[in-house]
Amino acid sequence: LTVLTQHEIRQVLGELDGWQPAGAATDDVGEIGKQFAFADFREAVAFVVRVAFEAEAANHHPDLDLRYSKVQVTLSTHSEGGVTEKDVALARAINAVGNR
Amino acid sequence: LTVLTQHEIRQVLGELDGWQPAGAATDDVGEIGKQFAFADFREAVAFVVRVAFEAEAANHHPDLDLRYSKVQVTLSTHSEGGVTEKDVALARAINAVGNR
Repeated sequence: LTVLTQHEIRQVLGELDGWQPAGAATDDVGEIGKQFAFADFREAVAFVVRVAFEAEAANHHPDLDLRYSKVQVTLSTHSEGGVTEKDVALARAINAVGNR
Repeated sequence: LTVLTQHEIRQVLGELDGWQPAGAATDDVGEIGKQFAFADFREAVAFVVRVAFEAEAANHHPDLDLRYSKVQVTLSTHSEGGVTEKDVALARAINAVGNR
């Protein structure tokens, strides 16, 4: 696994619906994140469970912040100290379960 | 619903295993929180689901931050601008599902 360059991350974000740079406010993007909004708390919890299955399947685990009907998802490959293809692949899978 | 006084909150926290003042670093406690640690991600997700059922039953919804095998729970009654009996009751219920 190699950490994506800043240029690669910006290219990927252009193709990943709704994902943005996340985390510390530096020029270097070390995390990517997206907020998913649902009709209510139950729908948000259902999304968290769907994401959990994707995370286990990928053996890669995002940070998940549940705020009533909203879920903030944050992805980074901590072992590599940045954003890798693992994050990009999981972001795509999460988009697929979040946009039903 | 009345907001608990700071004295009442400190008394309650003395009886609620593991709960601490949370949120903004002021002298006034407006939120209470507890971190629950589990063996792995699956156990942490299972806890989130159990807490979700308690939250729906109480019609009161904590903030839940999932970090792999750890879950930070934060409670406040936003409509009242502080900690109320609703938070205390839900904290007890969450302790019951979290300490299995």
